[in-house]
Amino acid sequence: MSKPLRIGIAGLGTVGAGVVKILAARGEHLAAASGRVLELVAVSARDKSKDRGIDLTGVRWDDDPLALAAADDIDIVVELIGGSEGVARDLVEAALKAGKHVATANKALIAHHGTALARLAEEKGVALNYEAAVAGGIPIVKTMREALAGNEIRSIHGILNGTCNYILTEMETTGRDFADVLKDAQDLGYAEADPTFDVGGIDAAHKLAILASLAFGTQVDFANVHIEGIEKISATDIAFAKEFGFKVKLLAIAEKGEAGIVQRVHPALVPEGTPLAAVSGVYNAVAIDGDRVGHLVLEGRGAGEGPTASAVLSDIVDVARGLIVPPFIVPAAKLKAPAKPLMDEHKSSFYLRLRAVDRAGSMAEITRALAEASISIERIVQRGGKSDESGRMPVVFITHETDEGTMARARTLLAKHEDVAGTPLVIRIEDGELR
Amino acid sequence: MSKPLRIGIAGLGTVGAGVVKILAARGEHLAAASGRVLELVAVSARDKSKDRGIDLTGVRWDDDPLALAAADDIDIVVELIGGSEGVARDLVEAALKAGKHVATANKALIAHHGTALARLAEEKGVALNYEAAVAGGIPIVKTMREALAGNEIRSIHGILNGTCNYILTEMETTGRDFADVLKDAQDLGYAEADPTFDVGGIDAAHKLAILASLAFGTQVDFANVHIEGIEKISATDIAFAKEFGFKVKLLAIAEKGEAGIVQRVHPALVPEGTPLAAVSGVYNAVAIDGDRVGHLVLEGRGAGEGPTASAVLSDIVDVARGLIVPPFIVPAAKLKAPAKPLMDEHKSSFYLRLRAVDRAGSMAEITRALAEASISIERIVQRGGKSDESGRMPVVFITHETDEGTMARARTLLAKHEDVAGTPLVIRIEDGELR
Repeated sequence: MSKPLRIGIAGLGTVGAGVVKILAARGEHLAAASGRVLELVAVSARDKSKDRGIDLTGVRWDDDPLALAAADDIDIVVELIGGSEGVARDLVEAALKAGKHVATANKALIAHHGTALARLAEEKGVALNYEAAVAGGIPIVKTMREALAGNEIRSIHGILNGTCNYILTEMETTGRDFADVLKDAQDLGYAEADPTFDVGGIDAAHKLAILASLAFGTQVDFANVHIEGIEKISATDIAFAKEFGFKVKLLAIAEKGEAGIVQRVHPALVPEGTPLAAVSGVYNAVAIDGDRVGHLVLEGRGAGEGPTASAVLSDIVDVARGLIVPPFIVPAAKLKAPAKPLMDEHKSSFYLRLRAVDRAGSMAEITRALAEASISIERIVQRGGKSDESGRMPVVFITHETDEGTMARARTLLAKHEDVAGTPLVIRIEDGELR
Repeated sequence: MSKPLRIGIAGLGTVGAGVVKILAARGEHLAAASGRVLELVAVSARDKSKDRGIDLTGVRWDDDPLALAAADDIDIVVELIGGSEGVARDLVEAALKAGKHVATANKALIAHHGTALARLAEEKGVALNYEAAVAGGIPIVKTMREALAGNEIRSIHGILNGTCNYILTEMETTGRDFADVLKDAQDLGYAEADPTFDVGGIDAAHKLAILASLAFGTQVDFANVHIEGIEKISATDIAFAKEFGFKVKLLAIAEKGEAGIVQRVHPALVPEGTPLAAVSGVYNAVAIDGDRVGHLVLEGRGAGEGPTASAVLSDIVDVARGLIVPPFIVPAAKLKAPAKPLMDEHKSSFYLRLRAVDRAGSMAEITRALAEASISIERIVQRGGKSDESGRMPVVFITHETDEGTMARARTLLAKHEDVAGTPLVIRIEDGELR
């Protein structure tokens, strides 16, 4: 048995407390599995008096998290503070500079500073592990970083935000609208008081930027993720999608395009019968397409105390067992600078919903406008032809494949059209790469 | 950069050739990821003259695979010969004894001799990796061995044999019967000329025994796997199951029972809408229930050149990176002897199909017989009440939960009943643990 691995944890929210609980409950097993005792030496959090349901007898309390990076008796710093800047960033940088291993659940930090932090870790020969930063309990970082080494990755499609997936599933099941379901989700603790990061797609984009780097050997490039949230999706859209055989999901997609790596987070119509369409509620999932392995799908809980703590433990055990790998598979110096992709060149078919003025000839006018904008239409649905209170008729078009630029121009054109009320809603259809 | 990792491969079938191809195509990436060049030094196979579409220039050819274990210039032996005894076993034992790492895709070998081989590997401080032995390209061994260290595992439910899943999916889609679809599968190369290992459930049982050991910290215990194959499933059963909202799958299940670890492979009715019900064709999947992570499902290709070679590469890269873990998570000496489970004590509800003699009062007689055998019935379906050519009527019962012993007695009783033709077919219903 080697020397104990001495652990310092910064941040004792639900995840931090969860890690402490596992270390206590599974200590003997973890030691047998690692060949070393995993010893919790010190913790740091804001409120020392708070009851977290954990026993910290014999564990040092540091009011200043940075003390963990400076301590001589700590081998690995577990950063569970969160945020891409401030204390979390200072702590991780200081810990790495001091030659300590780091395990973190901080997706924002890795998405913004992953490449620079990887360089630091490699200089010191220490681990920078972040399994818990992407898709909670799903071992997607380990899978990408280790299991798929023999593969060239062609694409990644993920459902990476449980809050959004919960809201969309509830909207589908109950027929209620976005704002209504969001409020419930907040009351249940599934959504934050300020839900922007989740429903706006930013959280999913953080995770996607990390996965894209692992998949394509490029520097982490959060700035170039195309991001759209689910705020504009209505129960009507979900019902229409169902008629066409689709579910509406917030997808996070990274794939090799002609211009570079395309990274995009947006609502999408996903065909029923594919693995991602079946992912419901707070579950996350990642579908990977590798040239050797083919399609591989991992599904599980993307957040919460247990799943996230499980992922942090995986990172700690790896260090205890002596597995130190470059944080992004190959040394940071070898990561390619990502070519700035032109989202305009992306092609797909689209779901286009608009409200038409209910008068004779308006549909003919609108379809002609679409034709003039070079949009070719596969299907048109007017639900029962009924107009709403304001005399508008919801109409949905499914287009043939077209590019983003053409679609954007058509949308602008339609928004100005006298027979169209308001701005049309456009949702991409993803039916190619999911199996 | 450290010294090269020198590789010897025994067995150049599709998987062996696949590994050689990846080493050639991804050499630079693999070196960057491992910090070492992965160097193919020697190979051994039966027929030197055969064209395998690979370039072996500069690679030593050994007619005797055991020469790989004896060679001074080999660090890791990749065993792709197969079979639980004979050359494969001799080679792996010799390689480990000579202090060489081993990567193998041989499920039969690990299922039968896993614990003993693990002991050997640990004595010498070398790796015994077998990712490719279970579920092909799905990184299930890595997930169990590393990612889920913080979890107590409650159960594993797997679809571990692609041949069976392909046959059952085809039977469902086309309505054709087992023998017919099996013949097609053989013609397509999805089933062996002697299909017993696959359709009889033995192959799935090999894999299950390995997963059970990883899940529960017990010695590998293939002898105590309860095994039933899919040979008796008819298109009629699949159609009936569909009426009830189920798919028929060959499941491999390991769970903690009161008497010990229950390991069982058998056809099962799986509720539609659960992840395993959606796994179709040659795909494999494993659903894990862990106390922290919750439900985690991994789905992918369970066989074939690319997926299996991808898994072998993962094993090789781990060794190159210096990750040497006990083959079954904790040292072999600490693995618990598995308590022999009493399958009789297992409880579930059952699908029971029989052919009743078409005469007034026969149904009353049969249901009374079931009541006398202490079987409580939830549903009865007589499809249209029509009898077949021989004057028999297919009848299906769905029972309430009962134990195996009671069900077996009822089945024997019914088989002798004058109103029942032939032996009734019984399929377990698995609806509890899948989500």
